Amino acid sequence: MSVDTNGQSAAAMVPTSGPITREELQLASRNHAMPLEMLRWPITPVGMHYLLIHFDIPLIDPTAWRLRIGGLVDHPHEFTLAELQHRERRTLPVTMECAGNGRSRMDPRPISQPWDQGAVGTAEWTGTPLAPILREVGLAPEAVELVFTGADRGLQGGSEHAYARSLTIADAMSDDVLFAYEINGQPLPPQHGHPLRLLVPGWYGMTSVKWLQSIEAIDHTFDGYQQAVAYHFVQEPSEQGEPVKHIRPRALMVPPGIPDFMTRDRVLDAGPVLLQGRAWAGKNAISRVEVCVDGKWADAHLDPEAGHFAWRGWSFTWVAAPGNHVLSCRATDVEGNTQPLQSEWNYQGMANNAVQELSVSVTEGKHG
Amino acid sequence: MSVDTNGQSAAAMVPTSGPITREELQLASRNHAMPLEMLRWPITPVGMHYLLIHFDIPLIDPTAWRLRIGGLVDHPHEFTLAELQHRERRTLPVTMECAGNGRSRMDPRPISQPWDQGAVGTAEWTGTPLAPILREVGLAPEAVELVFTGADRGLQGGSEHAYARSLTIADAMSDDVLFAYEINGQPLPPQHGHPLRLLVPGWYGMTSVKWLQSIEAIDHTFDGYQQAVAYHFVQEPSEQGEPVKHIRPRALMVPPGIPDFMTRDRVLDAGPVLLQGRAWAGKNAISRVEVCVDGKWADAHLDPEAGHFAWRGWSFTWVAAPGNHVLSCRATDVEGNTQPLQSEWNYQGMANNAVQELSVSVTEGKHG
Repeated sequence: MSVDTNGQSAAAMVPTSGPITREELQLASRNHAMPLEMLRWPITPVGMHYLLIHFDIPLIDPTAWRLRIGGLVDHPHEFTLAELQHRERRTLPVTMECAGNGRSRMDPRPISQPWDQGAVGTAEWTGTPLAPILREVGLAPEAVELVFTGADRGLQGGSEHAYARSLTIADAMSDDVLFAYEINGQPLPPQHGHPLRLLVPGWYGMTSVKWLQSIEAIDHTFDGYQQAVAYHFVQEPSEQGEPVKHIRPRALMVPPGIPDFMTRDRVLDAGPVLLQGRAWAGKNAISRVEVCVDGKWADAHLDPEAGHFAWRGWSFTWVAAPGNHVLSCRATDVEGNTQPLQSEWNYQGMANNAVQELSVSVTEGKHG
Repeated sequence: MSVDTNGQSAAAMVPTSGPITREELQLASRNHAMPLEMLRWPITPVGMHYLLIHFDIPLIDPTAWRLRIGGLVDHPHEFTLAELQHRERRTLPVTMECAGNGRSRMDPRPISQPWDQGAVGTAEWTGTPLAPILREVGLAPEAVELVFTGADRGLQGGSEHAYARSLTIADAMSDDVLFAYEINGQPLPPQHGHPLRLLVPGWYGMTSVKWLQSIEAIDHTFDGYQQAVAYHFVQEPSEQGEPVKHIRPRALMVPPGIPDFMTRDRVLDAGPVLLQGRAWAGKNAISRVEVCVDGKWADAHLDPEAGHFAWRGWSFTWVAAPGNHVLSCRATDVEGNTQPLQSEWNYQGMANNAVQELSVSVTEGKHG
């Protein structure tokens, strides 16, 4: 199949140091970021969690909907939503982040959804564990992967497909992988995958397939576009590269003071300021957050952990003197992984966890 | 007070035919549009309703929060949230639209939040009417306007202020003006003005002040930035112009077929296609929706009205032949107001209700 603009689209995909394109703006209007002041909330309210939606949000009748599990299994089954809701129920606070978070800060800028740094959110997801269901349907010995397919369909990279991703059997059997049907105590809204999504804590968001419709056990490595082409660390499009998987460490700060509407520049009063934010590292716990003021790093205070896969609050008191200042923060996890000071470039703009850098203007005036 | 970049900001505010700026992209990342496929839903789910947030979303403790009513009134009063919730309770389905919707389609493009056409949503708002409260506090005879001030504070147009708008006494006493504390049956989430917002049905969204904290009765015309400078129809910044008030007619269509991720170009199968969408006109009822296919206009079917201030569904069966086509739709209200085919330019990019134009590619292939 072909679309008139496919050629144009492919050309527009070349990374650029030029201005933002119309296509990037269209994507930025659809794919919602979390405004960084929402880091004040330990659980992101519905409507403020980031959203990356490849195609259209489908309208699904939950009473007609079924989850089909088939392929290399002993007992193929179609689950109703009620069946899944009557199984073991678990609630997990999970920080989810888009693999492309930070993309628009790379130079040259990979052309796709032009995230700044807000493609993140933490929700309490409720659902039922996947592993017992897989044991019940009985995976055949030759099964090596499970392919999870959503109801959202479209074209990407010249290929028409329903959004689909795979996991190895071992990853899918992991204890914390859920079929989620609630977010923050409410039924999933359409934009988060109503009526059911996969939830794979610790992995970048592309893994947690929304509007889940089918699971197929296969005896080979899945070669669908979203698995084999997209979400890879490559330096040029012809490379195969390594797949993007687990969320890297990142700390973000609530921008202090008050903003200018247009520039988002910040101004605040001289004196003590409580800088605060959240830090996360996918499957790993956070062991340290540092704050940098005008080039000088110091340790921040860490709040108690809020869950194995949830971000951790931090704070730092800064005595702000009049003038212009640059603030940064940096997370380190228990394995010693930390954030780079500069973006580590790759062609698709994946997993850019370079430290946040924020310019503020401190005055003797009275603001806020 | 001054911010270093104020000069730069002012320069960047000049309308341009040039590329999207970084500042516009920052705003597009904060201010969420409703993806147009959400027109399938009669009530927009929380998280999909448009959001325009001038400054930061404030974190407000609803137990400490008070609504102060003062100025030229006989009995100044501070309301708790519980007091307001125990008064008369009303629920209204209301279509709300940002005054800047359509801005980025003007040429030259006014520089502000670069909306395409999705700055709209319809919610069921629950609250208590304003008029009885105003009668109880007793407006002084010399009061001519009420100033509604929110908790959100920042800089815009070189002025530091809390977001504030006014209404004449007559407009504020209108029967359908509410203090809203719920959306779609839930407490307002932070981004919609928690714990209380003003709701002025039929007016563009800037009127429905979020995070409402105080109401002051005054004996003159309010000259705050958001009232006297912003939200005016002007051809150049030195003009005073007419204020933007009521929502103009607009119809939008669910983009048919399936999208390309990057370009958002649409492809669909040849054959009968049910084109559908919603139309609204602020205070006025919709009397007609027309659909245009490749330059030929025809009447669409109108669904029953869904509420005096809520959008109205429409549909139109199109037999799509292979090839490229251009689709449009146009709303007309009971007073005969309709949509222009071309944008009517103004400096701030206000109320651009030019008809939607959608290019689609129809093939004999099988999609979706």
